[in-house]
Parts: sequence; structure tokens; C-alpha cells
Amino acid sequence: MEHKLGLIGCGVVGQGLLQILHDKRDFLRDKFGCEARVVAIADKLKGTLMVPEGIDIPAVLALLGAGQGLAAYPKATPAQVEALDPLDMIERTDADIIAEMTYTDIKTGEPASSYIKKALRTGKSVVTSNKGPAALHYREIQDLARQNGLQFRIEGTVMSGTPVFHLAESGLAGNTVREVKGILNGTTNFILTKMETEGMDYGPALALAQKLGYAEADPTADVEGFDALAKVVILSNVLLGGSVKTTDVPCKGISSITKADVEAAKAQGFRYKLIGHAKSENGVITASVSPQKLPLSDPLAGVMGAQNALSLETDLMGKITIQGAGAGKLETGFAILSDILAVHRG
Amino acid sequence: MEHKLGLIGCGVVGQGLLQILHDKRDFLRDKFGCEARVVAIADKLKGTLMVPEGIDIPAVLALLGAGQGLAAYPKATPAQVEALDPLDMIERTDADIIAEMTYTDIKTGEPASSYIKKALRTGKSVVTSNKGPAALHYREIQDLARQNGLQFRIEGTVMSGTPVFHLAESGLAGNTVREVKGILNGTTNFILTKMETEGMDYGPALALAQKLGYAEADPTADVEGFDALAKVVILSNVLLGGSVKTTDVPCKGISSITKADVEAAKAQGFRYKLIGHAKSENGVITASVSPQKLPLSDPLAGVMGAQNALSLETDLMGKITIQGAGAGKLETGFAILSDILAVHRG
Repeated sequence: MEHKLGLIGCGVVGQGLLQILHDKRDFLRDKFGCEARVVAIADKLKGTLMVPEGIDIPAVLALLGAGQGLAAYPKATPAQVEALDPLDMIERTDADIIAEMTYTDIKTGEPASSYIKKALRTGKSVVTSNKGPAALHYREIQDLARQNGLQFRIEGTVMSGTPVFHLAESGLAGNTVREVKGILNGTTNFILTKMETEGMDYGPALALAQKLGYAEADPTADVEGFDALAKVVILSNVLLGGSVKTTDVPCKGISSITKADVEAAKAQGFRYKLIGHAKSENGVITASVSPQKLPLSDPLAGVMGAQNALSLETDLMGKITIQGAGAGKLETGFAILSDILAVHRG
Repeated sequence: MEHKLGLIGCGVVGQGLLQILHDKRDFLRDKFGCEARVVAIADKLKGTLMVPEGIDIPAVLALLGAGQGLAAYPKATPAQVEALDPLDMIERTDADIIAEMTYTDIKTGEPASSYIKKALRTGKSVVTSNKGPAALHYREIQDLARQNGLQFRIEGTVMSGTPVFHLAESGLAGNTVREVKGILNGTTNFILTKMETEGMDYGPALALAQKLGYAEADPTADVEGFDALAKVVILSNVLLGGSVKTTDVPCKGISSITKADVEAAKAQGFRYKLIGHAKSENGVITASVSPQKLPLSDPLAGVMGAQNALSLETDLMGKITIQGAGAGKLETGFAILSDILAVHRG
């Protein structure tokens, strides 16, 4: 079956997805019977490109790699590269799946939420790596998708392509998830790892994370726990069936953790981790983000560097822990692909 | 959709499955639209029971719990409890799924392989927790299933209900798995953990494992690595697409590891684990089972006690590790349920 894809946002994740779709074209067709033709791309900075018969992926990657906009697409007609607001692109394209990969605004969820609703109202399933809509409007958007017989999928929002929702839906289907506990932010885990294994203080460890590209110039969202907070809200609402709001969740980051704290914990046989936690008990969900001293026997204690991991506490299987990359171009591009394959399976 | 299930083998795993099917009846119907009616049970020791309109699960669990055979089923007609060879039960039942849960014979794969082939030839999908058929005849049986438009599913054969095959098929779909490395035997991991954390020597640690029910009176299959070997062969053939035989795989267990070995490794910052490993390179698969000294930074090093874990090395996602229970009544019963749900999804 052939799918027509429309991409909104074509930064690192979008280009990762394009690369995978190109490299894995034969594999996806032969193994899953899934052919994905990219028919539209809209990016606020890079412009718009609409080619119903299918965009030449290597050509797009080459021009974006050279710092050019989509208007430079070879032999483009003016209509194909007419500058469009993403909402208009969604309206006009005959794509059956929209991959929404714009930046996260965790306060408003916009403009991504508007894009997603527009897509669902015009008959297109949506896959996204954007935490905003999932953290703020999951239930509403999921209801809208169901009413229209479409899918809204969000694998990439929590641990990039390390599968959390697919795991719960498929491998653990039949279990009730009662509690989740995870290392959901790679930047802070990298910093804590450096503080413990190399005796660095918080400041230099953060500076190293920035130098290596793990942390932004303004590291607030990571180090104060806000990124993990959005993920805890998503997990609470998707896996525990809650209706938790970001303002419901107490959130403490790692910026006040000192080298002395880390060393004292280590001397007692513990290790500091920034833990996102949510638990359902008698229908009430309690959630938090905070630095915690874990015993080394906890499966999360061994998760070092920029890796992520999540433990799911279930009724039949007890605790199941999955560990893997929590970010990355190919990894998040893959998260989008895994949701496209899920839409393909139907 | 309603499924009719036939169970072959009704020991610990079969009773775990029955318990789950009973406890989760409403949940499975409401959430997945899956109703599973047990219509037949055949067990070499406990007898046969065939009730096309559906077996009363609590009644069966009560009589098996009291040490009685299936012939004691309340108000049974003689025809319902006529002693049958499982092959005859498979022939006669109108079940659409056979759950094969007899003991593993890793040398011959029998009688389970014959049961499974009979089921597939008479139009019934098969789900099994039995390592024998999967390790010895996976390709042949899978081909037979495909030719008949049926499914042959084996989630429970490697890490009980901790999902390995569902993970690869669903959450990691689109990746190519190049290598797997795992702690696939809980008994040996329990023994090694006790040797390290409590300074026990091998003999007393094994005796403790036997006392707690982790190890059999004859612990050979566990401690010499044969159980892990069967699992490595299954992983090689299912995830890496190989045609590896049990005799192709060098296998060394933990019986020669001493307390001094464990302590020397620990002093160097390493930890002994019994590792099952398989790697595909240029179409050639190399596989092994052996005790290995892992650096503590390896995600498998932190897996303690009777837990299992598997790392999958993939092309897009790098290393993904999943950890959970590797045995247990409900856990293996759940593995069977997860495969029934997969057959249900079609």
C-alpha cells in the first residue's frame, strides 16, 4: 500500500526521516508492503514544496544540506514552491499522513496543535515527535482522530525512537500499567554521569554538555526538569489513562545538585538520577520530576551518559525496563517512521 | 471476535494462562474485542477435557489445584473427558488457536513439534512457550504456518513474557537487527549475583537457587548453558534470519566460575554474566554462550538476581535493551496471551 506523506517542519528530525525513507525504500516495500511517497514539505524557515507525484528526496537533502531553501528545488514550477502557511499546505495536499515535526512550545502547544487538528479534520492521520500537543491536548486530539477514523501517534515524544508506546500497545498488551519511572532527559543524565564518573562539578559538566551539543545555550528546559515534566505528563495520560496537566506535577531539576551530593550518595551505594515518575492508585495519578538517589540494584541506576530508560510497573509482568537512545537525528526520524508503519498496519 | 482455544499441557504455564484468561476476561473483550473461549485441554498426566461451548476455568483450576485430573470436571459427560492423545484432541477440536505448553526436549523437539505441525495442518494457529520446536525447526514450521495462512508465535520461548519478538516486530520495525547479546537464564544470573553480592562460592549459591526453586534438582541445563544455548539459536534464526543449529554454537556454562574469579573481576570493575551472543556479519552468523566479564557501563551488567535482559544492536536505533522477568507462572502465561492477542490482531 502506498502512503502519501506531508512533512511539517524539516529540520534535523525531518531530514533524518527523509534519509531513512530514502535508504530503506526497498526494505520497507519488501518487508512491510509499505511505500511512502513524500508529496509535500512545509517549513517556516525553509519554505514549501508540493510535488504530488513525489518529491526527489536526495535532491531535497542536498539543497538543505547546502543551506538553501526548498524554493531551490530543481526544475520546480512556481506553484510547487509557492510559499504557504503549513495550514494551507495541509488543506491543499492529498497526503494521507502528516508528519508534524516542528519545535515544542510546552506552554501553548502551538502552532503544532493547530496543524494537527487541521490535518485530522481534513482526513489525514498524524504522527508527531512534538511534546506540546501530546502533553497539553492528548485526549482532545485522540478523540478527534477517532471520530474521523484516523490515527494520532506520538512515539517520538518521550524517548525518541526507543519504543515506549509500541511496547505498551504490542508486547505488553493485556497488562495494566500501574506506574512508570524513567530517565527521560539525556542531557541531565549526561551531566550527572560526568559529575560521578569524572568528579566534575555541576557547572563544568553542564559546559561540557553544551560543548558536545547535548545541552542548549539556554539549558533551562533540560536542567530544571521541564523537558522531563512534559514527558511525565504524556506518559501519565497515555499509559495510565490520566488527565494530568503540566501544572499538576511538582518539578525539581538538577541545578542545585553538587559534586559533594553526588559523592556522598556514591559512598552510600546510591546514584543520583533525574527521575520522572507517575503512579496510578485507586484512579488517582500522582506524578513528579525530581533528582533521586537510586540504589545500584535499580535497573535505572545503571543507565549512564545521554541514554534514556523507562521502567513500567505492570500487573502481570511486574517491572519491565527499556533502555536506549533518547534523542538523535536518525533515532527521532525512526520514531516517526515507526508511527508511519503503525498507521500502515491500521 | 471470539477465539476458541485448545491447550496442550496444563502445568504451571497452562494454569497461569487459564488464570489470566479468567481474571482479564472483561478487560480483553472491552479493550481488544478479544474473547477467548477455552474449548479443549489435553495433558499427558492430567487427562483430556473437551467442551465445545467453553470450559469453566475456575472449576478446572480448582480441581487441578486439588491434585485431581480433568476427568473429575463437574458434570462431565464421558465423551468430554475421554482420554485422548493430544494429536487426537487437535484433530477433533474446532479450536482456531492451539496453545502448546508441554515440556522442552531440546534434542528432538518432540512431541511438541508433532503437535504443532498437526495443528497447523488442521487449520489452527499455534502459540507456544516450548523452546524445542523453535530452536530445532523454526523455519520449517513458520513456512508451514504461512502456507496455511496461519500464525506460529513463540514469544514465551526466550524471556518468558518480557517481549523480545513483539519488540522487534512492532516498536523496532524498520530496523535491521545486527547483533543480540543477553542474559537469558535467570538461574545462573541468580547464582552469579549471590556469588558477587554475598561472597558465596558456587556450590552454596547453586544450593540456595535449588532451595528457592530457581534451579532444578539436576541443574545441568541451566548451569552448563544449554538453556541459554537454545535461546541463542532461536534469536539467531528469528531476529537475524539465520539457520543456526544448536550444534553450531560453542557453549560454556558457569560451573567452573569460582568466588575468586568473581572477586577478581569485581576488583577490576567488571562483573561476570553468562552471556548469550549472536552476530550477523556479511550474511554469516556467529553465536556463543559463555561467561563474560562485562564492564559496569554495559546495560547488562546491572541486571541482577533472576532477571533476564537482551540488548539488540540495530542499524537505526543503535543499542536497545529490554529487561524483565524471564520465568514465572503468570509471566509465561502472559507470553502465551500476548501471542494470542497477536493472532487476534491478524
